[in-house]
Amino acid sequence: MKKLMDYKVGETFELYLLIKQATTGVTTQGSSFMTLILQDKSGDLDAKLWDTTEKHVKLYPSGTIVKVGGDIHEYRGKNQMRIKSIRPVKEEEGISISDLVPSALKSKEVLFEELMQFFFEMENPNIQRITRHVLKKHEAEFKTYPAATRNHHDYVSGLIDHVVSMLKLGKSIADLYPSLNKDLLYAGIILHDVGKVIELSGPIGTQYTVEGNLIGHISIMVNEITRAADELEISGEEVMLLQHMVLSHHGKEEWGSPKRPMLKEAEMLHYIDNIDAKMNMLDRALGKTNPGEFSERIFPLDNRSFYKPSFE
Amino acid sequence: MKKLMDYKVGETFELYLLIKQATTGVTTQGSSFMTLILQDKSGDLDAKLWDTTEKHVKLYPSGTIVKVGGDIHEYRGKNQMRIKSIRPVKEEEGISISDLVPSALKSKEVLFEELMQFFFEMENPNIQRITRHVLKKHEAEFKTYPAATRNHHDYVSGLIDHVVSMLKLGKSIADLYPSLNKDLLYAGIILHDVGKVIELSGPIGTQYTVEGNLIGHISIMVNEITRAADELEISGEEVMLLQHMVLSHHGKEEWGSPKRPMLKEAEMLHYIDNIDAKMNMLDRALGKTNPGEFSERIFPLDNRSFYKPSFE
Amino acid sequence: MKKLMDYKVGETFELYLLIKQATTGVTTQGSSFMTLILQDKSGDLDAKLWDTTEKHVKLYPSGTIVKVGGDIHEYRGKNQMRIKSIRPVKEEEGISISDLVPSALKSKEVLFEELMQFFFEMENPNIQRITRHVLKKHEAEFKTYPAATRNHHDYVSGLIDHVVSMLKLGKSIADLYPSLNKDLLYAGIILHDVGKVIELSGPIGTQYTVEGNLIGHISIMVNEITRAADELEISGEEVMLLQHMVLSHHGKEEWGSPKRPMLKEAEMLHYIDNIDAKMNMLDRALGKTNPGEFSERIFPLDNRSFYKPSFE
Amino acid sequence: MKKLMDYKVGETFELYLLIKQATTGVTTQGSSFMTLILQDKSGDLDAKLWDTTEKHVKLYPSGTIVKVGGDIHEYRGKNQMRIKSIRPVKEEEGISISDLVPSALKSKEVLFEELMQFFFEMENPNIQRITRHVLKKHEAEFKTYPAATRNHHDYVSGLIDHVVSMLKLGKSIADLYPSLNKDLLYAGIILHDVGKVIELSGPIGTQYTVEGNLIGHISIMVNEITRAADELEISGEEVMLLQHMVLSHHGKEEWGSPKRPMLKEAEMLHYIDNIDAKMNMLDRALGKTNPGEFSERIFPLDNRSFYKPSFE
Amino acid sequence: MKKLMDYKVGETFELYLLIKQATTGVTTQGSSFMTLILQDKSGDLDAKLWDTTEKHVKLYPSGTIVKVGGDIHEYRGKNQMRIKSIRPVKEEEGISISDLVPSALKSKEVLFEELMQFFFEMENPNIQRITRHVLKKHEAEFKTYPAATRNHHDYVSGLIDHVVSMLKLGKSIADLYPSLNKDLLYAGIILHDVGKVIELSGPIGTQYTVEGNLIGHISIMVNEITRAADELEISGEEVMLLQHMVLSHHGKEEWGSPKRPMLKEAEMLHYIDNIDAKMNMLDRALGKTNPGEFSERIFPLDNRSFYKPSFE
Amino acid sequence: MKKLMDYKVGETFELYLLIKQATTGVTTQGSSFMTLILQDKSGDLDAKLWDTTEKHVKLYPSGTIVKVGGDIHEYRGKNQMRIKSIRPVKEEEGISISDLVPSALKSKEVLFEELMQFFFEMENPNIQRITRHVLKKHEAEFKTYPAATRNHHDYVSGLIDHVVSMLKLGKSIADLYPSLNKDLLYAGIILHDVGKVIELSGPIGTQYTVEGNLIGHISIMVNEITRAADELEISGEEVMLLQHMVLSHHGKEEWGSPKRPMLKEAEMLHYIDNIDAKMNMLDRALGKTNPGEFSERIFPLDNRSFYKPSFE
Repeated sequence: MKKLMDYKVGETFELYLLIKQATTGVTTQGSSFMTLILQDKSGDLDAKLWDTTEKHVKLYPSGTIVKVGGDIHEYRGKNQMRIKSIRPVKEEEGISISDLVPSALKSKEVLFEELMQFFFEMENPNIQRITRHVLKKHEAEFKTYPAATRNHHDYVSGLIDHVVSMLKLGKSIADLYPSLNKDLLYAGIILHDVGKVIELSGPIGTQYTVEGNLIGHISIMVNEITRAADELEISGEEVMLLQHMVLSHHGKEEWGSPKRPMLKEAEMLHYIDNIDAKMNMLDRALGKTNPGEFSERIFPLDNRSFYKPSFE
Repeated sequence: MKKLMDYKVGETFELYLLIKQATTGVTTQGSSFMTLILQDKSGDLDAKLWDTTEKHVKLYPSGTIVKVGGDIHEYRGKNQMRIKSIRPVKEEEGISISDLVPSALKSKEVLFEELMQFFFEMENPNIQRITRHVLKKHEAEFKTYPAATRNHHDYVSGLIDHVVSMLKLGKSIADLYPSLNKDLLYAGIILHDVGKVIELSGPIGTQYTVEGNLIGHISIMVNEITRAADELEISGEEVMLLQHMVLSHHGKEEWGSPKRPMLKEAEMLHYIDNIDAKMNMLDRALGKTNPGEFSERIFPLDNRSFYKPSFE
Repeated sequence: MKKLMDYKVGETFELYLLIKQATTGVTTQGSSFMTLILQDKSGDLDAKLWDTTEKHVKLYPSGTIVKVGGDIHEYRGKNQMRIKSIRPVKEEEGISISDLVPSALKSKEVLFEELMQFFFEMENPNIQRITRHVLKKHEAEFKTYPAATRNHHDYVSGLIDHVVSMLKLGKSIADLYPSLNKDLLYAGIILHDVGKVIELSGPIGTQYTVEGNLIGHISIMVNEITRAADELEISGEEVMLLQHMVLSHHGKEEWGSPKRPMLKEAEMLHYIDNIDAKMNMLDRALGKTNPGEFSERIFPLDNRSFYKPSFE
Repeated sequence: MKKLMDYKVGETFELYLLIKQATTGVTTQGSSFMTLILQDKSGDLDAKLWDTTEKHVKLYPSGTIVKVGGDIHEYRGKNQMRIKSIRPVKEEEGISISDLVPSALKSKEVLFEELMQFFFEMENPNIQRITRHVLKKHEAEFKTYPAATRNHHDYVSGLIDHVVSMLKLGKSIADLYPSLNKDLLYAGIILHDVGKVIELSGPIGTQYTVEGNLIGHISIMVNEITRAADELEISGEEVMLLQHMVLSHHGKEEWGSPKRPMLKEAEMLHYIDNIDAKMNMLDRALGKTNPGEFSERIFPLDNRSFYKPSFE
Repeated sequence: MKKLMDYKVGETFELYLLIKQATTGVTTQGSSFMTLILQDKSGDLDAKLWDTTEKHVKLYPSGTIVKVGGDIHEYRGKNQMRIKSIRPVKEEEGISISDLVPSALKSKEVLFEELMQFFFEMENPNIQRITRHVLKKHEAEFKTYPAATRNHHDYVSGLIDHVVSMLKLGKSIADLYPSLNKDLLYAGIILHDVGKVIELSGPIGTQYTVEGNLIGHISIMVNEITRAADELEISGEEVMLLQHMVLSHHGKEEWGSPKRPMLKEAEMLHYIDNIDAKMNMLDRALGKTNPGEFSERIFPLDNRSFYKPSFE
Repeated sequence: MKKLMDYKVGETFELYLLIKQATTGVTTQGSSFMTLILQDKSGDLDAKLWDTTEKHVKLYPSGTIVKVGGDIHEYRGKNQMRIKSIRPVKEEEGISISDLVPSALKSKEVLFEELMQFFFEMENPNIQRITRHVLKKHEAEFKTYPAATRNHHDYVSGLIDHVVSMLKLGKSIADLYPSLNKDLLYAGIILHDVGKVIELSGPIGTQYTVEGNLIGHISIMVNEITRAADELEISGEEVMLLQHMVLSHHGKEEWGSPKRPMLKEAEMLHYIDNIDAKMNMLDRALGKTNPGEFSERIFPLDNRSFYKPSFE
């Protein structure tokens, strides 16, 4: 079925959409209007609702599912939609939010299954037990949260999707460089971003929490490892090394890591995180680019444009 | 009584000294020697012990108190001592290490007393209880550790000396800018460097521990606040804000703070820490400088030399 | 009495306001309009005046006091006012510009009185005489100028307000660190920004002068110290040290100081200036923030947002 | 058999060694001496030869194989050897330079065989033909040169060793991220450092050539691709993209790449190069480190020390 | 005759203009419009064409010459034109594109003549022959291309204009510093930007080509020198030095030069390029500035404004 | 006649030399020695004087002319001299310091004559009078001081030599770019470094003065222009512009200029200063380099080595 992003300029559509964000304004001539950001799984577009009243504001808060008819036009180089009809969805139409938000290609259950396999290759009981304990405590959120508010893996279950992809890459690298300790590497990959379930507000309409802003997912996770070790009555070098893996995974102080990597596995964790995040951004940007052309600029890749070769 | 640093080039001395560091070497001609760093409360100097044997190595490990006779000469612009006689101290001479290591001017008991007075100005029970709890747990080390391995307050009880001085400055500033919250500011000052008692090895011959290198005093302390809050069953914003005070007190990511200050009191904590540390370095460097001349370069002050005015 | 910034979106008002800035434009449809920035002591807002003619342009230049009726609406996340009636103020209404521009809380006379007290603690006659001489020469402007065109102390008498606040902080610090020379420190605080009275255009609608742009308040002030010393026939180290205090008070070359501080007092002057400026910005930003929320971003504080705790 | 680096301080040895570098000096007392750097496959050490004459200088130039007897001592924290006997090797002893210089673990023939397998996975004939052509032209040097003068893969056949290791890693990554074009990625890996065979002087005693200094291996290789395409009469996008892969493989302008990566495969080439080089440095540094201790500082890894866990 | 940039706000005009760029849009009310950038030799302005249809889009693509009547108004501080009449030019009106695009003051033939004179001062036959060969191959484009897409010498024949101006400056400098080698310096000046004829799309409506983006004019030119030397069968140091001159002319790696200058003449080439480019930007910006005022900000001069003295 | 730097390793010499610097030391075995830096016009070398007594220290302070016999040897890659005989020069030998210190090739009178010619091209009386006034006041020092303590023009009369060379370059540039104001440019060139006569201690054994360190030649000169204008009773824009020329001639804040250039002539002054200083360094370094080799590293040129072509 054709989705929002499949429509081109000038085409008309009739679709169920989720109001991602709703704000109100007043034209310079004095009449009220609303700006809506409407989305389905394929992406989102802006729209204006003109001459609105208090009734509209109550009917269409962010988070509402609506049925919208309209067409697509271009404004300042970006597509927008023009709303011709809009109404809240009816219960009997059976549309739920999960039908309209993007998510990982595999289900969270399948991803979690894949993740759990990696524990079989881990041998150090302390590392394994701490990792399992933290994971279990945050399992529900870990399976549904995105890995970020934007840029990469910023969709429902994006966090676990990112972690499983990193684990596969980690396994390849550890097979090629056998001096790497798989216990540390896998545990580091699994734990490094679990703090995001406290740093971020949730899987949809994701924002930073106050704790996320003031403490950050790295320090949150270091605390959680302390707690896990206390609860399991584990002490010793492994606890410290796991904390170091998490602490250093941003690679440099200026990127938010209070310590630079001082373990071989921590250095590799930083690379693996980078490669997986950047491949995700590149695939997304180049998916929207025609062969023989340059992509839009990708901000976290130093704002570079990437070229898509004209041959296969 | 005349101390080590009071002797000028050419003068002879006879002093009790502590071997701060001892290393062995071989001359290019093949004979063995030892390089000793010898100190008393006034400072330390290098010395060579020529034509040494295994016996010397066993007799003069670092940490030994010795009685040394010799004179002072200059080598590459720095004073050194030439040893003419050396022997281990005898027990009946009654010299202890604390007689030979520099320390805060006030006793640690007096300093602790002064520190405890600041609790009376604190009103928020959660902040007060967490701060007292952490302090109590590490009280012994907190009272004897230095604040750093070198540069500033790097002597026995330097840490508490630094903290009490910062509290006094903090009080002045809070009195001038009454919008500052004294609970947060005082607690932040007291807690910010307590992690040093785990980061550093001890009050004498201080080095970084493995945990200090891999985790660092900032993250160590954030963990300790989590533990204290768990043990006291305190939760809520105060815990998070105290953690933020500690996390951000280095001011910038590139200076090791995973978060920049986002509380007014955190911003001030960073300044107060800076002023007290730098006044300590400046007073020390200018104390060794003649009026009308420039001091030696001070590395942590961007390697600058400071001028000492020729008038009072 | 309710001031401009006290009105919320949707409320109507009738106020005397000062036209801070007036520009003209043409809509894409070809009709003329004016954009006015209107202010009272509480702050300023933008407004549009539609379908204007030459008559309006002459009637409402910047600097005019007007009586305006209208209401407040929001446009792109910022409040604006919608003008329903506007006319120039009548002389008999007795409103003067000083009623409508923000200023220091204390009167300039009181502030100057406070400042003069600090001379009693100064002992070095050369330093005192030069400082008094420069101050006397620029006294009138020094008492009314702002300390900056925006960001901190950017109101009438903001400069002297900033200097008096710094002197109080300087006194506290000098009392805690008695090795500081109060003559140098106080003179440095008093003189450091006097050059602003030439760098900036005046107390209202403040802009940089050509001399301000090409020479800057630091070099302007260094010249003034030379002149003062020549006129008083004072020579010697004090002149040079006062010049160094001014030259280095921005702390680093890249912040506009041709020399980094090389006097203990110059290092402290830089910190004191920083603390007072930043407390002013923080208090202002947090004054507009609700408890439990983050402030707007503060550009000169690395564009950070600050959190206002939800408890007192 | 015990090699040079296996001897500890105080032990005596009798070994065939290669003079890697020989310089002469005069003591402050006026007698001549030589400083030799002597190596075998395990590494190298410094030694002094005292009271030398012209005869010694002629007998022991760099590149000479010698039989040396002596012992190991420590000087300023680094091991040195003390020479007790030395003579040039005799032909009948049958020692050749390749017995004494470190080299890749696998033979160059085996490595080349492995490399050639990757061509089977390449499909684009233009890319394949250019890559083979360049490789064929420089095959002999490509098989014996090091990848660098120091830091990583700085041994005989280090270049091909590095490239084969990168190809294996590239294959793993391309299998995990199937949108990557294997033609571009493999060709980029093979070609990226071929220019080193002109930039560097040779497999032993490797230094930068004048052309290496003035032009650099990146531009040298871009020229070679132009030549290859001209000779094969291939034109079109593939030539340009291969040149871009080489041009951008250092990742940033400040690291010597005139263009940042603008192809997904170029971005990955940069990461793969980095991972393989850094794993090589880390394995080497940690190989010399005891469990529970920190390695020496590794300059190209931001001068960091790495910790070797005390558990397996 | 009065040109586009000579008209002030409020004046009406009737002019032949070139459509430099044409884009279409839709108003929020749903009607179509076009945004045109229209230019003559004096500069360019934006204009809107309201209520457009498909017919307008076909009639007015970029590159069309039109006769336009209208007037000038100001919008957000920038002049715009309001179109009152517009039609495509008729053939019999005899207007060609070259009448409407800015160009060098001297004709390209005169400039080329001036350039060729510099060969008479060159003595090294290898350097001369390579330089002539490259120049001959690209002569046509070299004579018409701009030196850049914007900022400096961004007009028809701007490249040769820039090069001739640099040659004159180079000659002055070489006369003052006779140790400079004129062969290298002149050849470097002539060749340094020839690669722009491949990097850029053409003399009008200039954009970067794909090859320009992925390879860049520096590496393009280094390749061309290789080709020229191969075709002329010249080898030896001169080829390498000419390549180094081109490679290093941006001065630093972060400015796109893979090598910093390592020849005296390369260092000077970088300065000469800079001076000529900056004088061009400064003259242009100050030409639009009134005496006693500051120019607009000039982005490539660190975004500085320059002051135009009020005296001659 | 053969000078100090003409002697190669192993050669013996007998020369009049100036003791540039003399320091005393003690060997680790306890005997005293002196380290002398000895120079003639060609350069300087280090030497040791062994087993010295108080008599030697009194006989050979820095500034003494001595007759020395000895030979040249190499120590750590640098030439040193071994003293075999040394005695103070006798008055009747008629050697003066000016015979032994390097100086400009032309006499200071000839250089001053050349400089004065440039005043004839200046037209603005205010600029001319201020420039002449400042120059006259410091004429004696201006004619003998070096331009720097090291790196470039660091010899007797180096300052005027540098200024005259810059004036010639400035004239060439102003002739090519006629929009440049010669009054400002020439005055800026003449005045920009006059402050060095206060910043530096004198023509021989040059060091920074206290005022040089604390105020710097830029601010010193800005003050002098103020004084000159006051004394000549000149006011107006020219005074400010001359001060801006001096203030901004280091180009950037981080290079010690409190303001970046905001005049076209100030921008050019910065370039002209740079070109002349760097040509001086390059000629000096390449003068010591063999064709086909790289020079020693030149610290102020980003520590680069420069290549000297093997052809003329």
